[in-house]
Amino acid sequence: MNTYKLTYFNLKGIGEPIRMILTYAGKDFDDIRIEREHWVQLKPKTPFGKLPTLEMNGKVLHQSVAICRYLGEEAGLGGNSNWENLEIDMIAETVTDIKNIMSHFYRQLDDESREKKRPELLNETIPFYLERLDNIIKNNGGYFVNNKLTWVDFYFAGFSETIEGMLGEKICEKYSNISQHRKKLYNIPEIQNWISKRPSTMI
Amino acid sequence: MNTYKLTYFNLKGIGEPIRMILTYAGKDFDDIRIEREHWVQLKPKTPFGKLPTLEMNGKVLHQSVAICRYLGEEAGLGGNSNWENLEIDMIAETVTDIKNIMSHFYRQLDDESREKKRPELLNETIPFYLERLDNIIKNNGGYFVNNKLTWVDFYFAGFSETIEGMLGEKICEKYSNISQHRKKLYNIPEIQNWISKRPSTMI
Repeated sequence: MNTYKLTYFNLKGIGEPIRMILTYAGKDFDDIRIEREHWVQLKPKTPFGKLPTLEMNGKVLHQSVAICRYLGEEAGLGGNSNWENLEIDMIAETVTDIKNIMSHFYRQLDDESREKKRPELLNETIPFYLERLDNIIKNNGGYFVNNKLTWVDFYFAGFSETIEGMLGEKICEKYSNISQHRKKLYNIPEIQNWISKRPSTMI
Repeated sequence: MNTYKLTYFNLKGIGEPIRMILTYAGKDFDDIRIEREHWVQLKPKTPFGKLPTLEMNGKVLHQSVAICRYLGEEAGLGGNSNWENLEIDMIAETVTDIKNIMSHFYRQLDDESREKKRPELLNETIPFYLERLDNIIKNNGGYFVNNKLTWVDFYFAGFSETIEGMLGEKICEKYSNISQHRKKLYNIPEIQNWISKRPSTMI
């Protein structure tokens, strides 16, 4: 039997989609949440100085999108063709763009610059992405790709609460398709169970 | 027959790996290079306000990694298993991390901040990545994954000249495995021919 050890910070972020896909696939995993003060010691031991990492049977995997795609494929959440995988990947890389914008906003700006930047993100940058993603869900039967659940649905939904936590506003709830999409995913019994027991974090 | 129209700026960047994979696969493509002043008009017509896009039989594809993976798979440059694809993807997302660092440095900083930042990138940040990538090539028979050519070899090599152009230093040449890897790819006859005829650009 495979063993899984996920190492990340005590937050949802880009670790949460991995936790959700593992949960959906019925895989038990160690959910290691390290504190910032331990990160300094751990950082040089990771493949490229970043988290999350997923240790699987002793092999250390890194890069959240790569991990989600791999686990998704194993769980039957990949595309049925190279073309369908392309459609999944275009969404995934777009979500990563949002992640990079949010990460820069939340981690690299000082308090003053962050408050200056917040209105632009809330009123322009993030709505630009969410409008388009909402429309894609609308045109694909309530999912991102081809009317069915794939790993990229978890990649976005899992990260979406972090977008809201970082902005301090439930911005996803303004988009009906995105909002329903998240509700639908969170109503999957395994995911519902995971959410009821996961540690409560702001982001 | 498929038709391909690549739209990007007049630079190598993350468009060059796509150009190389199309070239390697023997596909003719329109290599549209737009000037910054036309970008304002074009931007709202792209899927998520970004380039490159690849128009294939009228369908507009976006996100360079997704496009490289799709074209790579079609050209026999994908992995042989889900695990091999994971190994390819971990490298690809790492190269994207470098791309984001370089893009922030080159596009978002003012001249003064850029000059302040340059030594850190040249002496710490980029070497941190290149050392590790160099070692991976060394351990994989001169390629990134499993002793054979895959699309991620083009993704890194195609972008590597842009890293050097942005830093103003041939930093990749300091790493023997990376340097040989690039030479080997550029000696593939189709790629050699492409390089001899492509527009000359600094980045």
